[in-house]
Amino acid sequence: MGGDNAPRAVVEGACEAVRESDVSVMLVGDEDAIKDVLGNARSAIDRLEIVHTDQFVGMDEPAITPIRKKRRSSVRLCADLVHKGQAHGMVTAGNTGAAMVAAKMVMGMIEGVDRPALSMVVPSPKGRPTLVLDVGANVDSKPRYLRQFAVMGHSYAEQILGTKNPSIGLLSIGEEASKGSDLTREVFKIMESGSLNFAGNVEGGDVFAGTVDVIICDGFVGNVMLKACESLAELTIHHMREEISKSWLSKAGYLLARPAFERLRLRMDYSEHGGATLLGVNGGCFIGHGRSNAHAVKNAVLEAAAFCRTGLHQKMRERIAELHRFEEALVQSEEVG
Amino acid sequence: MGGDNAPRAVVEGACEAVRESDVSVMLVGDEDAIKDVLGNARSAIDRLEIVHTDQFVGMDEPAITPIRKKRRSSVRLCADLVHKGQAHGMVTAGNTGAAMVAAKMVMGMIEGVDRPALSMVVPSPKGRPTLVLDVGANVDSKPRYLRQFAVMGHSYAEQILGTKNPSIGLLSIGEEASKGSDLTREVFKIMESGSLNFAGNVEGGDVFAGTVDVIICDGFVGNVMLKACESLAELTIHHMREEISKSWLSKAGYLLARPAFERLRLRMDYSEHGGATLLGVNGGCFIGHGRSNAHAVKNAVLEAAAFCRTGLHQKMRERIAELHRFEEALVQSEEVG
Repeated sequence: MGGDNAPRAVVEGACEAVRESDVSVMLVGDEDAIKDVLGNARSAIDRLEIVHTDQFVGMDEPAITPIRKKRRSSVRLCADLVHKGQAHGMVTAGNTGAAMVAAKMVMGMIEGVDRPALSMVVPSPKGRPTLVLDVGANVDSKPRYLRQFAVMGHSYAEQILGTKNPSIGLLSIGEEASKGSDLTREVFKIMESGSLNFAGNVEGGDVFAGTVDVIICDGFVGNVMLKACESLAELTIHHMREEISKSWLSKAGYLLARPAFERLRLRMDYSEHGGATLLGVNGGCFIGHGRSNAHAVKNAVLEAAAFCRTGLHQKMRERIAELHRFEEALVQSEEVG
Repeated sequence: MGGDNAPRAVVEGACEAVRESDVSVMLVGDEDAIKDVLGNARSAIDRLEIVHTDQFVGMDEPAITPIRKKRRSSVRLCADLVHKGQAHGMVTAGNTGAAMVAAKMVMGMIEGVDRPALSMVVPSPKGRPTLVLDVGANVDSKPRYLRQFAVMGHSYAEQILGTKNPSIGLLSIGEEASKGSDLTREVFKIMESGSLNFAGNVEGGDVFAGTVDVIICDGFVGNVMLKACESLAELTIHHMREEISKSWLSKAGYLLARPAFERLRLRMDYSEHGGATLLGVNGGCFIGHGRSNAHAVKNAVLEAAAFCRTGLHQKMRERIAELHRFEEALVQSEEVG
């Protein structure tokens, strides 16, 4: 029921995903509204099920709503279904904060993870995408959270993106270890002593340059940065339309080159990648853009299914446990020393 | 002597600025290298002077270099000239950190300003630009620094951009006062009690949307954000070239629409606006992009001249003094209360 185009885009996107793959989808929300969109399509698809509820969390309601006030809300029921093992993962285009809180509180965290992180895949010139996390789940992160983000990002890049020994960059200003904020200097130190493929500090200019496979940062800077980039892309399109519409010649030229621009849009639009994934919770949680259309929802469902099939959070749990053993050994060797 | 295209781009840009306006320029650097570029042009322009030095700060040298090790470096001499009143402002495309440190240490700070802030003008859909500060002079800012950035940004928007009663937004995640980091929540409180036109929190998505006239933030997030946006713009151009070159039809279309794309580039390219301005120091300090070409240098010189003509830092000094009187009064009234 979430997102600007719900329930139509969500229902249609889910149907497309079911038709194109062997995934099964439970549509959680108002049964009548869902049936309205489904029309006769439903009878044709047996891997589609409706879970009815009349409670929804609006885009402007506090993140805690599905826990405190609306325990029958669609986003809460999704988290419940995952927690009970009736679903492998949840996909939403609704209130991001509410989805994160529902997932964290209902599914619970992977043992050893202090905070879940919202991760997003962004394009690069080399075609090999970069995973950025955290893009908005946490502010004022402690150094150990970023260390855990690195482990989770490593697992994601390896298992989902298929990157061998993924390199990990720490988002900062200036490349040297001494540069950056109190937080990044501290994280640099602990990352250096770790077993991951740490590439040191990277700058904002590296985010879309494919410099590293995984970029770790506090959720405040990650969120502001990606939202600003999105607003720059929108402004560029806005100005481009204005400029092209100024003459018949440029309109004609644009029409000729249109297939190229359409391919460009597909390459640059990271909503194509199905939105953001919440890492660190016990189950899949995928948060699409509020403006997701049916196509974006379909992609989100297919990527969520692929994610759940890898059993990523089982692997993440093992990696996090390894990290803790490594750190304990380090502390003990220091104490002995 | 700074920047990727120095000294050619810097000297040529300065010449263009002198030809197109009544500004006088001192070229600070290696006399022979400068004369090589100037050729015979120099004799034709009497508002061009060379100040020779054989010392330069490289792009990778520490920011403190012009103070500690290279006291005859070109960037240091520029700051000296401004400090002695022989120049109104300095323009560089070189090492940003070194320029900031030289300006701060040699020119000194406006009384009442704790930290200078690097500010940058970014485009908006409405055509009225937005000033963002700090974009990289400070990390781990204290709340009162951001309050001072707001006062400096207000003065800049009013005097240089011609915006009446400029609105000021605090860069955060989430719009409500309760959202954001420890820093932004604290700044929100003190901004609310102030006399400026405070518009509350803004998000990354507002940066290129023209939501407010001035955006204040810590230099870590401002720097990472704008550099990421720049790298996204580069990636877009990279992919666009690739896609267009794939067919003759789209190549032809692109050629027809080329004037529109050229106008688009001019509207979006914020290096057109002459780069970043360091606010809070006693004199003008303008830092162009390291990749500045002659055209960008010319714009930087012309904007620097316009800036210096407004006597902005005198006005800023008055505003900062007002702010301090206001805060003292507030403290006293609280003590009396």
